[in-house]
Amino acid sequence: MAKGSGMIEPNMATMICMVTTDAAISPERCDEALRSCCRTTLNALTIDGEMSTNDCVFLLANGASGMPMITEPDEHYDRFCTLLQEVLAELTRKIAMDGEGATRAISVTVQNARTTDQAEQAARAVANSLLVKTAVYGKDPNWGRVISAVGASGVSLNSKALSVQFAGIPVVLGGAACSYSRDQMDQALKAETITITVELGSGTASARIWTCDLTHDYITINAEYTT
Amino acid sequence: MAKGSGMIEPNMATMICMVTTDAAISPERCDEALRSCCRTTLNALTIDGEMSTNDCVFLLANGASGMPMITEPDEHYDRFCTLLQEVLAELTRKIAMDGEGATRAISVTVQNARTTDQAEQAARAVANSLLVKTAVYGKDPNWGRVISAVGASGVSLNSKALSVQFAGIPVVLGGAACSYSRDQMDQALKAETITITVELGSGTASARIWTCDLTHDYITINAEYTT
Repeated sequence: MAKGSGMIEPNMATMICMVTTDAAISPERCDEALRSCCRTTLNALTIDGEMSTNDCVFLLANGASGMPMITEPDEHYDRFCTLLQEVLAELTRKIAMDGEGATRAISVTVQNARTTDQAEQAARAVANSLLVKTAVYGKDPNWGRVISAVGASGVSLNSKALSVQFAGIPVVLGGAACSYSRDQMDQALKAETITITVELGSGTASARIWTCDLTHDYITINAEYTT
Repeated sequence: MAKGSGMIEPNMATMICMVTTDAAISPERCDEALRSCCRTTLNALTIDGEMSTNDCVFLLANGASGMPMITEPDEHYDRFCTLLQEVLAELTRKIAMDGEGATRAISVTVQNARTTDQAEQAARAVANSLLVKTAVYGKDPNWGRVISAVGASGVSLNSKALSVQFAGIPVVLGGAACSYSRDQMDQALKAETITITVELGSGTASARIWTCDLTHDYITINAEYTT
């Protein structure tokens, strides 16, 4: 279960998430599993770049499954982590879909970065770009706004190897714009979740950040709200 | 002369500015003066947090005043810098007023910070906050959004000494909300330029960043624009 809508760029900061399981797992392993899964799920989400004062995520395990207690980082623990990661990733996507005023979720993946930190930094820059978020609202595969955000983020990139895909359709290949079917793109950009994929060509690391489009309703909700 | 409207958080990056003078001043002094004045003027501006690929500022001096050439960092040079600073500050405010969809300019000043860098970091966080910018659009002196942005920026602050003013009217004093005249505030928030002042209570440094409110028209302009 997760709640969120605006003021969201968790680092655990208004997002509230509660995960329950009937697994038998020790508090130490729960803590470790939850922390390790948050970086690529709940902490890889930004609705509006606004870190709140009180995000939180809880994992409660009651052991009702009757299975043996997981206390060591063994194969049972790895399996638990994989499932927890899937649950948190799905909740993260749903919070993005619920973003204030949002009409669709956006998943930004940066690949072939020099380091994971750089991949995350570039993906977060694209996800927090007002121009990218309004372009998706306008159903425009505006790759110029994407590579501008990536460039301004300061990460290492090989401009001759740079590629960008909107909804799985290549729009930039080898650092140059490429042709695509406008009809196919129009159709693809109507989806509930839009993926933007950027390849930097400077390494092997990757990261994904979740966000949503920026719409008239976001402005209405946040301009009409009064303290 | 300056041009700008969207995609603006210069570090010199779509902002174009041209300053002309009939002063007689050497190229070296022009370069030094312009660089020293940009940090607190053109580079202290963000319309939408989007650094462009091609901001630029030029200073052209033709010496037509017939005054002696300024070549040394003397009192004439200091006077020139003061005037250049005033011109650039006014142009900066005007670019903010011209921001895409903007109804008003916002000046964010952070005072009593530990360092100038921290003052700038906190002021930039407030100026780039979508929640602060929509609050100003909604004429709401939402200090909670301001101090949340300051807190998330990671700068050093003394919560017991924290104060916030909207349009010169204190709304937070000594870390606590204070009462104010709602009528007076309503009137003040109709101004063309809204000042937000934050005192951190952790030092003596200060900085100011210019921005504008975030409105329905920004969304319309940037969602309807198609590549």
